[in-house]
Amino acid sequence: MKSTAAAPPPPRAYRRLSVEERRAQLLVAALGLFAHRAPDEVSLDEVAVAAGVSRPLVYRYFPGGRQQLYEAALGSAADELKLCFTEPPVGPPTERVARVLDRYLRFVDEHDTGFSALLRGGSVVETSRTTTIVDGVRRAAAEEILSHLGRIGDTDADAGKQSAGERTAGPQSTRARSAGPRLRMMVRSWIAAVEAASLIWLDEGKQPPAAELRGWLVDHLIALLAATAATDEETASVVRDLLALENPEGPAGRLAELVIPVVADAAHLLTPAPAAD
Amino acid sequence: MKSTAAAPPPPRAYRRLSVEERRAQLLVAALGLFAHRAPDEVSLDEVAVAAGVSRPLVYRYFPGGRQQLYEAALGSAADELKLCFTEPPVGPPTERVARVLDRYLRFVDEHDTGFSALLRGGSVVETSRTTTIVDGVRRAAAEEILSHLGRIGDTDADAGKQSAGERTAGPQSTRARSAGPRLRMMVRSWIAAVEAASLIWLDEGKQPPAAELRGWLVDHLIALLAATAATDEETASVVRDLLALENPEGPAGRLAELVIPVVADAAHLLTPAPAAD
Repeated sequence: MKSTAAAPPPPRAYRRLSVEERRAQLLVAALGLFAHRAPDEVSLDEVAVAAGVSRPLVYRYFPGGRQQLYEAALGSAADELKLCFTEPPVGPPTERVARVLDRYLRFVDEHDTGFSALLRGGSVVETSRTTTIVDGVRRAAAEEILSHLGRIGDTDADAGKQSAGERTAGPQSTRARSAGPRLRMMVRSWIAAVEAASLIWLDEGKQPPAAELRGWLVDHLIALLAATAATDEETASVVRDLLALENPEGPAGRLAELVIPVVADAAHLLTPAPAAD
Repeated sequence: MKSTAAAPPPPRAYRRLSVEERRAQLLVAALGLFAHRAPDEVSLDEVAVAAGVSRPLVYRYFPGGRQQLYEAALGSAADELKLCFTEPPVGPPTERVARVLDRYLRFVDEHDTGFSALLRGGSVVETSRTTTIVDGVRRAAAEEILSHLGRIGDTDADAGKQSAGERTAGPQSTRARSAGPRLRMMVRSWIAAVEAASLIWLDEGKQPPAAELRGWLVDHLIALLAATAATDEETASVVRDLLALENPEGPAGRLAELVIPVVADAAHLLTPAPAAD
């Protein structure tokens, strides 16, 4: 029980923790502040107070000051978010995606201001390093979604742009087929749409409720898969395989039911089927 | 014909242009460089050479140096891009959106490296001012798309966040109804997806051909409208009105034809229609 928030820390306090533990403790304190405030508004003094240590101790671990601490905290948040994406390849794929989105939206909720400040750009703490961390999260999200579509996203071209340490796909995933360019573009576009929707959701006071937003984001993915399948043979084959795994009570069945009256309004656009000859 | 690229300009050269003309000339030269190079790689000397003027003259117009010149060039590119969005409210709405996307993709093509560097973030020239300019373009894009859906996006909340000078919706658009939150979120998410797809398109050497990418982006919007209409009454009403304006040969008719076999694979997810009682 540390009660040394404003007072200088007891001289021996930091001896009790290993270097790794102390570093982790400082990161947790930093992340707690960066999650709910714009990065430019968080001072190193506040991090020291939140961690119950002295300012010089923070500097000893993070000689680069706030910028270094921000990047380290961001890296640790990114690792946490990547863990949220992990979902076993079991059950109807739309329900797996729904569970990933539930965890993702919980993360967005818990890191609201920091998430928003980071993704909106224009902050002084934004550098090519923070951009690389964010891109790594986006890539991990794309890999995870593609894996539930029975594909992997790594191509030679993609692999050339990322360092080995950032790769999230393990050797086991090399058994799956590489996704074609249209399917990869589809997944990455949908992820960008999810990100934009999350920012709007935060702006609008977290409305609609997270479960409703998640339902709509799943519907968005299903609709996009169907539309892409219309002109891309690989996506059409992926969709056939996916539909075989879905339940009538699941998101795909529910959306199919709901979309029928909408499509019925398009009947005048359809040419009658040609008579068999 | 100026042939003074490397040599100092003739002493009287700048007298021939008014202040506005000279400023416009410098901006055109800067934009030409910033369009195809990362902003960090463009020097003020190069801008002076490209404009055929001396470096001190560039500084006289842009005392803030490269940063100020970049922001001014970005503002001028943003105005150009907003003009691309303008499409008269005539004919099938999907074909209007297709024409807007054609012009947008031509702009992306013509400003490839600069577009990519700006939207990827992490550049030293990125500030809250550049972020505001980019957000203004996104807002103009959302207003334009909403207007073709028979709605306006301005709400009191949105209006509070933007200055009067940035508003693109003219007084005539106040006749349309304000879009509800789901429809606005839908349009803004789709715009984020278009942006992401454009960046991927640039990364992949501008493949697929722009017309194919545009066709897929229109399909994406149609699919998203249909999926959103399934759970949002306002979007359902918008879609009914839109479909009445579409042609069988247009994007909506073509997609409806192509998506039928995809949906047929979902037949096992549908419960049989209840018998009439």
